[in-house]
Amino acid sequence: MVFPHRKSADIIIINGMILSLAPDSQPIEKGALAIAGGRIAAVGSKEEVEAFYHAPQIMNAHGGLIMPGLVNGHTHLPMSFFRGLADDLSLDVWLKEYIFPAEKKWVNEGFVYWGTLLSLAELIRSGTTTVADGYFFEEEVARAVEKAGLRALLGQGILDFPSPDSPSPEEALKKIQAFIQQYQHSPLIHPVLFPHTVYTCSPSLLLRCSELAGRYGVPMVIHLAETRSEVEEVGRRYGKSPVLHLEGLGLLSSSLIACHCVWLGEEEMDLLALRGVRVVHNPESNMKLASGVAPVPELLARGVRVGLGTDGSCSNNNLDLFQEMDVAAKLHKVHRLDPTVMPSSVVLEMATLGGARVLGLEKEVGSLEVGKKADVIVVELSRPHLQPVYNVVSHLVYSATGADVRDVVIDGKLVMENRKLLTLDEEEILAKAKEWRDKIKPS
Amino acid sequence: MVFPHRKSADIIIINGMILSLAPDSQPIEKGALAIAGGRIAAVGSKEEVEAFYHAPQIMNAHGGLIMPGLVNGHTHLPMSFFRGLADDLSLDVWLKEYIFPAEKKWVNEGFVYWGTLLSLAELIRSGTTTVADGYFFEEEVARAVEKAGLRALLGQGILDFPSPDSPSPEEALKKIQAFIQQYQHSPLIHPVLFPHTVYTCSPSLLLRCSELAGRYGVPMVIHLAETRSEVEEVGRRYGKSPVLHLEGLGLLSSSLIACHCVWLGEEEMDLLALRGVRVVHNPESNMKLASGVAPVPELLARGVRVGLGTDGSCSNNNLDLFQEMDVAAKLHKVHRLDPTVMPSSVVLEMATLGGARVLGLEKEVGSLEVGKKADVIVVELSRPHLQPVYNVVSHLVYSATGADVRDVVIDGKLVMENRKLLTLDEEEILAKAKEWRDKIKPS
Repeated sequence: MVFPHRKSADIIIINGMILSLAPDSQPIEKGALAIAGGRIAAVGSKEEVEAFYHAPQIMNAHGGLIMPGLVNGHTHLPMSFFRGLADDLSLDVWLKEYIFPAEKKWVNEGFVYWGTLLSLAELIRSGTTTVADGYFFEEEVARAVEKAGLRALLGQGILDFPSPDSPSPEEALKKIQAFIQQYQHSPLIHPVLFPHTVYTCSPSLLLRCSELAGRYGVPMVIHLAETRSEVEEVGRRYGKSPVLHLEGLGLLSSSLIACHCVWLGEEEMDLLALRGVRVVHNPESNMKLASGVAPVPELLARGVRVGLGTDGSCSNNNLDLFQEMDVAAKLHKVHRLDPTVMPSSVVLEMATLGGARVLGLEKEVGSLEVGKKADVIVVELSRPHLQPVYNVVSHLVYSATGADVRDVVIDGKLVMENRKLLTLDEEEILAKAKEWRDKIKPS
Repeated sequence: MVFPHRKSADIIIINGMILSLAPDSQPIEKGALAIAGGRIAAVGSKEEVEAFYHAPQIMNAHGGLIMPGLVNGHTHLPMSFFRGLADDLSLDVWLKEYIFPAEKKWVNEGFVYWGTLLSLAELIRSGTTTVADGYFFEEEVARAVEKAGLRALLGQGILDFPSPDSPSPEEALKKIQAFIQQYQHSPLIHPVLFPHTVYTCSPSLLLRCSELAGRYGVPMVIHLAETRSEVEEVGRRYGKSPVLHLEGLGLLSSSLIACHCVWLGEEEMDLLALRGVRVVHNPESNMKLASGVAPVPELLARGVRVGLGTDGSCSNNNLDLFQEMDVAAKLHKVHRLDPTVMPSSVVLEMATLGGARVLGLEKEVGSLEVGKKADVIVVELSRPHLQPVYNVVSHLVYSATGADVRDVVIDGKLVMENRKLLTLDEEEILAKAKEWRDKIKPS
């Protein structure tokens, strides 16, 4: 049959099962998806899509799963260059004897640019299409992100002290404003404010960050209530918990993205819900650093928006959000001795549409719906560990890893095809990683 | 330079870093390994090995890591055909409404043979070379294992009740004896006794199993102290904990392999140590079923031999021992709020030489040492999530997955080369998995 009036699309993906993750949607066994102008033009059965669209590029999903790209809500991309430099140490020793000295000595523009590219290669390979990052020299992170073609929230880190890129908070604030002005209208990069924590940023610095965030209409990201020692230190200094300290400053709001949120009491959880604060859960990092188990089921029960993040490669030690989903689902079950908490569908939502809500991008990404940006991945299913398929959502959470991702499209552009990166020179990036390793730790 | 008197080997693996995991060994940057007659003939620097050996087959590790194959201490291979059939349910509902009825309805010779082949394909792909299995129709498991070429401990399951393959324990005991006699001199298959649990096997049945194990000099494997409800039920029935119940029967010994061991008090841990009982830890299964956190650091501190297992694909839901190592290392850290417990080297040992000790195979496998069986894997390192390399042991535990395994040699025979399975027809196995899925759950 011929359809003479079909509209023109850029890419049509065929021959796969569609898992759109649109609210109340069901998987479509023999589905197709049309992309035009960077957005999803059609999604449905192959017959439906091909009745209305034709395209110069037909992508074959080879019987795989066509689904939204994953959303990694919290990481520190350049730190992949320190992956495995130090592990299994008390938090104090790890930070003060290894990570902080290494950052002081090595973090510069080149480190950040190439370290970020290494992480972006890993993210694309494992199916992440949107990432929220916070570090130093964030303009170098932005340059790498633009090259790779990911979607990103980027926050220049700020503290009371000199940082690797700024001799003072004053200088950092200047850099941040310039960064926001440069990227506030970028299609893929969303600048944010990123004061490090309530114990490394004074109340006045936090308020100035918040004022800037408000002025530019961008979110503010912070590490919050991550460790018991943070709660103790903030208690000594301000006589309050970290959450109540922020409440006292008037900083709990729906434009705040709070990462970790491990040490919360009932009052804190109620406040986060009341103020609409968005939360990013990082279970593998919280486990590896022995920070604790965040009360995620309790937050979700209160209606708090919760996304999923890997944190940096030093405390994980990879950026694979598929593995993070698996661990998130299992950790809360054993912590509560209840196998019904955190079912696979809830966890998958945290890594897709729920994560997009946390980053304020739910109208653009997180599900495959007509009009949304085309951030799409194809996951191979014809592999021994992914067969047979009774419930594809269970497989994504409990059985798959990022290595099962075959193709990645971001903003309508193919960035990985049959596991080959198209926007990045992987060999060059791996060579740079080895060069930096030889500098950082001569063998 | 020419070495006229070099000895002949079958395979020499070159161009990789050797991580032998022999006690007190260090990685060898430019290493090589010679295999002759199924055993390791030489391991050392490329120059050393090539000075003494030549071989018709030179395997290029392409800069990867040459290390011992992993040892999966506990699983139920055929259950991969139920992968994802039911998750996120209370243990009672999961077992009684889903798993037991599905087993009753579907488990037969064909299910076991093809389900096992699916699992073996997954195991080889993810670098496991030795596996301990317990299920029904174990002769079909053995047939599949022989075809795949893995090393295995296989136990025919036995209970007080009729099982899928035996109308009574009497029949099961007959089958078990025949199975042991058939395989007791097999080079790759080691038969074991496998009474299911102390609450599904009467004291007299346990004693008969133990008598048989003693007669044939094979280990006895059992699920022990896995769940709180097991402890409660055994307490009601025998007035004792599961461990003390076995002690009362005189069954705690160094020929007992106890899987799970989650619910142990101080007295139980001391007894396991005193009697030399060997333990298999299955953290992902214990998390997913919300069974609890096994006191592994406490057992290791008492000198108990502890290996690592995935358990079956229904409670994990994959057989990737690399991911299991990652979760094992992290779970105990967060459970004790101590990031120094279960360092990567300890966890890697549990999955290699330590696991071999648990299965009684430490003289044959678990490390790359001259004279041992050649069970060797090559792990790719030139991948974004595995660079840079400061500490390769950290990477194996925290950053790698089974998908990073490139080549697998078992008993001196190449069974996977550049990710292609050589002993199994993967397409046929995947097609069978889909056939069984369509029978089990018509869409």
